[in-house]
Amino acid sequence: MSSSSFGRLFTITTFGESHGGGVGVLVDGMPPGVAVDPAAIQHELDRRRPGQSAITTQRKEADQVEIVSGVFEGVTLGTPILMLVRNTDQRSKDYGALKDVYRPGHADYAYAQKYGVRDHRGGGRSSGRETVGRVAAGALAKAWLATIGVSVVGGTVRVADVEASKRDWDETERNLVRCPDAEAAPRMIAVIEAARDAKDSVGGVVEIVARGVPAGWGDPTMSKLDAMLGAAMLSIPATKGVEIGGGFGMCALSGSRTNDVFDGERYSSNFSGGIAGGISNGNEVVVRVAVRPATSIGKPQVMAKTGGGTETVAIEGRHDPCICPRVVPVAESMMAITLADAWLRQRALRGREK
Amino acid sequence: MSSSSFGRLFTITTFGESHGGGVGVLVDGMPPGVAVDPAAIQHELDRRRPGQSAITTQRKEADQVEIVSGVFEGVTLGTPILMLVRNTDQRSKDYGALKDVYRPGHADYAYAQKYGVRDHRGGGRSSGRETVGRVAAGALAKAWLATIGVSVVGGTVRVADVEASKRDWDETERNLVRCPDAEAAPRMIAVIEAARDAKDSVGGVVEIVARGVPAGWGDPTMSKLDAMLGAAMLSIPATKGVEIGGGFGMCALSGSRTNDVFDGERYSSNFSGGIAGGISNGNEVVVRVAVRPATSIGKPQVMAKTGGGTETVAIEGRHDPCICPRVVPVAESMMAITLADAWLRQRALRGREK
Amino acid sequence: MSSSSFGRLFTITTFGESHGGGVGVLVDGMPPGVAVDPAAIQHELDRRRPGQSAITTQRKEADQVEIVSGVFEGVTLGTPILMLVRNTDQRSKDYGALKDVYRPGHADYAYAQKYGVRDHRGGGRSSGRETVGRVAAGALAKAWLATIGVSVVGGTVRVADVEASKRDWDETERNLVRCPDAEAAPRMIAVIEAARDAKDSVGGVVEIVARGVPAGWGDPTMSKLDAMLGAAMLSIPATKGVEIGGGFGMCALSGSRTNDVFDGERYSSNFSGGIAGGISNGNEVVVRVAVRPATSIGKPQVMAKTGGGTETVAIEGRHDPCICPRVVPVAESMMAITLADAWLRQRALRGREK
Amino acid sequence: MSSSSFGRLFTITTFGESHGGGVGVLVDGMPPGVAVDPAAIQHELDRRRPGQSAITTQRKEADQVEIVSGVFEGVTLGTPILMLVRNTDQRSKDYGALKDVYRPGHADYAYAQKYGVRDHRGGGRSSGRETVGRVAAGALAKAWLATIGVSVVGGTVRVADVEASKRDWDETERNLVRCPDAEAAPRMIAVIEAARDAKDSVGGVVEIVARGVPAGWGDPTMSKLDAMLGAAMLSIPATKGVEIGGGFGMCALSGSRTNDVFDGERYSSNFSGGIAGGISNGNEVVVRVAVRPATSIGKPQVMAKTGGGTETVAIEGRHDPCICPRVVPVAESMMAITLADAWLRQRALRGREK
Repeated sequence: MSSSSFGRLFTITTFGESHGGGVGVLVDGMPPGVAVDPAAIQHELDRRRPGQSAITTQRKEADQVEIVSGVFEGVTLGTPILMLVRNTDQRSKDYGALKDVYRPGHADYAYAQKYGVRDHRGGGRSSGRETVGRVAAGALAKAWLATIGVSVVGGTVRVADVEASKRDWDETERNLVRCPDAEAAPRMIAVIEAARDAKDSVGGVVEIVARGVPAGWGDPTMSKLDAMLGAAMLSIPATKGVEIGGGFGMCALSGSRTNDVFDGERYSSNFSGGIAGGISNGNEVVVRVAVRPATSIGKPQVMAKTGGGTETVAIEGRHDPCICPRVVPVAESMMAITLADAWLRQRALRGREK
Repeated sequence: MSSSSFGRLFTITTFGESHGGGVGVLVDGMPPGVAVDPAAIQHELDRRRPGQSAITTQRKEADQVEIVSGVFEGVTLGTPILMLVRNTDQRSKDYGALKDVYRPGHADYAYAQKYGVRDHRGGGRSSGRETVGRVAAGALAKAWLATIGVSVVGGTVRVADVEASKRDWDETERNLVRCPDAEAAPRMIAVIEAARDAKDSVGGVVEIVARGVPAGWGDPTMSKLDAMLGAAMLSIPATKGVEIGGGFGMCALSGSRTNDVFDGERYSSNFSGGIAGGISNGNEVVVRVAVRPATSIGKPQVMAKTGGGTETVAIEGRHDPCICPRVVPVAESMMAITLADAWLRQRALRGREK
Repeated sequence: MSSSSFGRLFTITTFGESHGGGVGVLVDGMPPGVAVDPAAIQHELDRRRPGQSAITTQRKEADQVEIVSGVFEGVTLGTPILMLVRNTDQRSKDYGALKDVYRPGHADYAYAQKYGVRDHRGGGRSSGRETVGRVAAGALAKAWLATIGVSVVGGTVRVADVEASKRDWDETERNLVRCPDAEAAPRMIAVIEAARDAKDSVGGVVEIVARGVPAGWGDPTMSKLDAMLGAAMLSIPATKGVEIGGGFGMCALSGSRTNDVFDGERYSSNFSGGIAGGISNGNEVVVRVAVRPATSIGKPQVMAKTGGGTETVAIEGRHDPCICPRVVPVAESMMAITLADAWLRQRALRGREK
Repeated sequence: MSSSSFGRLFTITTFGESHGGGVGVLVDGMPPGVAVDPAAIQHELDRRRPGQSAITTQRKEADQVEIVSGVFEGVTLGTPILMLVRNTDQRSKDYGALKDVYRPGHADYAYAQKYGVRDHRGGGRSSGRETVGRVAAGALAKAWLATIGVSVVGGTVRVADVEASKRDWDETERNLVRCPDAEAAPRMIAVIEAARDAKDSVGGVVEIVARGVPAGWGDPTMSKLDAMLGAAMLSIPATKGVEIGGGFGMCALSGSRTNDVFDGERYSSNFSGGIAGGISNGNEVVVRVAVRPATSIGKPQVMAKTGGGTETVAIEGRHDPCICPRVVPVAESMMAITLADAWLRQRALRGREK
């Protein structure tokens, strides 16, 4: 299996560099006969797109998706679906100055050590642009999951020290930071704007929730649903932590408090985050992702030179002062893809729909 | 690929239920010609073994490992290595009362929904006993990594509210809780003993560090080293969170603070946890794992009955009041296995040792 | 995925050397709730066992199988099934003389070049003994397939120049060579006995037929059912060819002759061997396997010495003059495993039984 | 792993239908720093292209390849390489009449049973057009193998009853049928022309040879090089048999005749086809593939109607009377891809070039 692939049965493989002919995704394992709405895919891509608001990078990419294969007369054929997005706004000159240095926090040095060759015009595969394909694939997974009533929502629940205290998922698309708490959103935005003005960046936390997941998806050992979600989320650029349900917050509590009481139909709490022993338990699946402060900042920084020594350089270009708002659709997509894969495995195991 | 497998090239597959003929692991991809010391494998298993101290479960399992295949005259053959540990202390009667209920926090309900059949005598594959195989495989991975100077250490850095403030890795095996801070250890132990006496449990955090990892291991997208470690750690029973380097703590900081400055040889800090863009950057690889309070507790709890309704039941048996000390060798093993797999992939890519 | 594994969803991984602690198989992906009859597994192993008749090797191995995990109260749990067979008749001394030469036709030289280390006491993983695990796994696959009326039969249809002209599958277990033609069987046996007496060996062809396979199993491109069967059969030791349906014999015919006419229910012929475009078409699935003359023969042969130069050596030991009779259960097993895997994939794709 | 993928480490995944937006391939695992010559890729595609000569289909497809990602300044980046070929000559009207019937020998019925939906405008994924991606990927594999002196050649060695008696690999591109025997070529062509004029088709055999393969590639059990080549070849449309080295012809010989004598440097014969125990032995790797008579013929044929009953229909369109000449570059590609994958695995195992 390619190291650029995710999913055993619902398999996505992304391709493309930020400065080549384009980026995209090859999806295999999508069942046949599922209606595909290109507008729905484009809508998700627009949520991820740079330049969408005042608090994201001002780079402009149209990110128009072409479905090259696997769909006929509006439904999936059950065959590989190639989705391609052309690169358009490639200001390679912005990157010329970076040819001879390793940017701090970036993959430049690790990348050079790994491959011995790199496309210095951008982050190559480490670029956030790689996530275009994930979002396109996620839109397909969401459409399929919706056919049995499974939905995936998400939002920014923390920026720097500002935390959301509500989870109103209808609110997220009404504010620029995609916060499910209308009261916290403007404070988050203010923090982001301050970072932007300081040519710096801030981090945050994104939360993703899947509703309607039947009990029985996932596996008991190496392919625990927790583990697959862990891999899914930590494969997103700039993420450095993931927690399920109670997560790190449970450490200080007792087992008698965090064992979710179940009466056969409902759970009294959700410390397990909807997953027990690696298998969905019928509760909402809840994941939170730690998003580090964007490593691309405008402030001058000390950088190692490829030929030895250091230099203080300011990275020109248009940066995201906080990438949480743009991580939301990507993390939702990875949740949807992970669940689609688990659903297929469960269908294989039991030979029926749920 | 089996859902009980981990690793693309250094592939481990565990097998066995807590109450069947035994548990173990099949390791494939281990290179030929590596010296294998059965005593070293047994030493790691003894670190995981129940009954090893006053603060772990008092169940007794000898956990004697047999190397059935793949090793000849003390060195690996490059062929599949089967390691088998027989079950010995099986008190099925302890579990008889649990046949008709779903234990809270456990996988019982999810398991029944998934499979439609379960071995009610214990946790089946969800049992902590499944980790025997991981530790045996981890011992092999450690031995191989050591041939190029890569070492893996770990310890309990938090129990409930008690945090370690030092990282003295030589200290961990000197105290029962495997804490790298000699001062914090007794306080952690006191908290665990209090939980045990209350027939309850507490959670904590385990930290694993890999030293000497060369730059260039890992992949830039779906198989980021972060992602593989995320899957590795969250596949361990009772874990509900994982963070790399700065993790969730970075969210409140600025990019100018968390971009590790590199002078071409050394890093000024390690917020990236030794991984940039999914690829090792030459710094120490640092992972922390959130361990929930053990779900098996002696206190009476409300449980759903398989036939409907609820019942208050006290689970007889011998439980771990805090599983952190026993998670340490398991998490170290998963780190070692993940790195061994990444090393093999890098050898394939570049055709040389590092 | 381990290179010792076969199958994406019904995954078998064999382990063990001919002269170590034992051989066997780890089966993962077997659905839960399937009845397992240990006697049926043992019956298949006995069909593969050395020493079973006058025309096979006279080595004696009891080949008693132990089911270590994954089965509880006579039904599968849906978890990994480990089956282990201990080695008993290990006459390492027979092999001592072979430590310093590369046997012609054997993997000795290739093996040494690959691994740099080898267990000279036998063929290591290249030994026919590795197939024990395949047969045990095949018995499980057969049992599961039988629940929907799919059966797998096979036999020796050619030995040297003697060809079977009938396909009476009830006949195969009535003669030592497992030939489905009662008239041809004694002539085949005579040829084998002559080879045995000359301390030489002969080749042949084994045919495997699967009946009751529903249309729709398999995939259209890389995982064509033909391709999977090709890999399955050519992974069996001593096989050097495989053909589906009309196979090589179709080359001389015209398309108007070999396009099987279908009336919506029945086919007029079966040149496609039950597979069209890689997908089962509802006809019987028919595969033939070319089995080379056994490379282990008693005649003196010129061999390269590991240190350079050549030597004429007679390989002591007890050899199979024709391995076709013992390949039959192995090839049946690989057919059953391949079909079980395809069935699971189709269940994932369509979410229903067939 | 996607069922449209081939190769564990050198992984290709093809996509595209004959009548959608295009076809192509995603290659992952190609090492970095390898020079890529677009003209060499185009040359291979031209060898596969329809309309290339009087004895192939007269359909015209330009088959111009675009390298979308993974190559920068003429060398590979080590990242996924997407190659895309647009569809141009789509005469869907030719296929309109076929919407309501299942063509004999084709996958139509099996496909409909598998997916429940199909693109009736052509063979969908079962179309020979899917092989475009294989050839593009094969050109990359060939380029990489060439860096250590491994070359892959192939040709048509049989058409109907006409067999080549020579293997002059410099001759193959000088005649339309790609026969390595200049004397047999015109006789083969005459047979093909006769079939074409009769609106019928003929089959044949293609042979592929890899030279310079070092000993030690491949694996001893499930991933034998024989098995991987078996899967590779039988995944090519219209193939129904494969043999390695002596293949089916060995059945009638004795072991003392077919055990290739090795003096430590050279082999006296090549019945093993360069592979012993699944591992390359330093001899030439030789594979032959049985190509059935093309199932698309112009003669009227009885076909099952999708709604029941049968009908006699003549398939309009432009068909290949013998597809061997066009299978040659595809089979060469699959050989090269299989070897590239085995090479990568061996580099992982041993950590060095060969």
